[in-house]
Amino acid sequence: MKLDVFEIISVGNELLSGKTLNTNAHWLAKAITELGGFVRRCTVIRDDIEEISSAVRESLERGVDWLILSGGLGPTYDDKTLLGLAKALHQELVLDGDALKMVKKKYEEIVGHGLLKRVELTPARMKMATLLKGSRPLPNPVGTAPGVLLREGRTNILCLPGVPAEMESIFKEIAKPIIEKRRKGFYYEKSAHVTGMVESELAPLIEEVLKGNPSVYIKSHPKGRKEGFSKIEIQVTATTDDPSIALRKVEVVLEQLTSMIIDRGGIVDEEKMP
Amino acid sequence: MKLDVFEIISVGNELLSGKTLNTNAHWLAKAITELGGFVRRCTVIRDDIEEISSAVRESLERGVDWLILSGGLGPTYDDKTLLGLAKALHQELVLDGDALKMVKKKYEEIVGHGLLKRVELTPARMKMATLLKGSRPLPNPVGTAPGVLLREGRTNILCLPGVPAEMESIFKEIAKPIIEKRRKGFYYEKSAHVTGMVESELAPLIEEVLKGNPSVYIKSHPKGRKEGFSKIEIQVTATTDDPSIALRKVEVVLEQLTSMIIDRGGIVDEEKMP
Repeated sequence: MKLDVFEIISVGNELLSGKTLNTNAHWLAKAITELGGFVRRCTVIRDDIEEISSAVRESLERGVDWLILSGGLGPTYDDKTLLGLAKALHQELVLDGDALKMVKKKYEEIVGHGLLKRVELTPARMKMATLLKGSRPLPNPVGTAPGVLLREGRTNILCLPGVPAEMESIFKEIAKPIIEKRRKGFYYEKSAHVTGMVESELAPLIEEVLKGNPSVYIKSHPKGRKEGFSKIEIQVTATTDDPSIALRKVEVVLEQLTSMIIDRGGIVDEEKMP
Repeated sequence: MKLDVFEIISVGNELLSGKTLNTNAHWLAKAITELGGFVRRCTVIRDDIEEISSAVRESLERGVDWLILSGGLGPTYDDKTLLGLAKALHQELVLDGDALKMVKKKYEEIVGHGLLKRVELTPARMKMATLLKGSRPLPNPVGTAPGVLLREGRTNILCLPGVPAEMESIFKEIAKPIIEKRRKGFYYEKSAHVTGMVESELAPLIEEVLKGNPSVYIKSHPKGRKEGFSKIEIQVTATTDDPSIALRKVEVVLEQLTSMIIDRGGIVDEEKMP
């Protein structure tokens, strides 16, 4: 089974100065994984046209089904995502009529709420409607800057705003149904917590279980000490084309591993996926 | 002033499946920025030798002073950071005597705490002491796997464990003093919160202030609505070779911008850097 391959590009100086924790990439990775997609890489770059352009080119050269960019769609001078993308694709930016209508409507709402005196289409506001040719502007239910969807070769390129609520809402309303329609796999995960063993004792057991179950993935995450005992989370995941098979594979493997751990004196607490 | 350029590579499937939020990259970016370094890019990749190797090569080709990898140093089969790094640098991994002593000492402590019956140097444990030739193992005060420091051309390559407490403690005790000695710049930031204006009204003011202050960086972060008013954080930062100049530049620019915002009917609340 060949899953759709995703890459995420997070744009924003604040992510690289340590000011802002990149919760957007985390949210997207989780959403995509649950939709049966495979997130191969996430690249975090600065508000810099050259960096955006080169990150996009590198990702397209690696070959991806979906490239999702977040951040840099707003009205300020350092919102440069579309400039970088245009450079990467050797395209020009043009004012998009539909996007302009979306932006105008947003400012009419803002005026309606009494937060602004009148709608003026200043350069900063027109900037948010200036897109690559052939792209589809996506309405932003929460903020002002529209999202952008376009296609380059086999790759769907989706640009989302950096404000989390805006990014999430455009993803859920517009991108999720498109991704879901192309879904090729189902993901399932289950974790358990092990005490009474150190990670290097677990390592050979995991390897042994995996030998018999190559389509399942097991990872151990050391979680520090708990009342003097080291605590390790083991996470078992599978992605298959049938949701009930993914679930069964994970359950069987976790059971096997659990009994091996208990045989060696370890203690296992299971944890259901939320 | 030319700052040391840093790149971060975060290794771990759990970061791309949406299981784990990448707090390590955030912590490192903040620590490096405060030490006067410039974090240019962060790449998040899977536990895959090819991906690790290509991400390392790409970073070295871009040219960096510091390449910091976190994750993938542990005893399990999917801890592959050093394998990927060795592949990128066309080197082999060899058992390192000093690293082995560090690992052995750690297991002696674990036996001392009664968590393990005896110290046995199993393959999983020797793996953590199997390093690239010429690298320096760095003691891990919190966990078992040593950190690794090596040099390739002009680049210092620092490998840290993925467990946050281990990563932080090796960075603070070993890497920070080395980075500090090479420090070329001082970073200062100050933020203010603006209400009563929308971001597209702020955009031209920021551009105007920046024209007269090219060495300062201003970014606006929309923070949603507060009691019906949109709330925007403006962040002013500067990095200079003299800490008092960085501070003064930031203060002057924030004052200028504040008075322009107030002139246009906005409200500004200042916020000190913690």
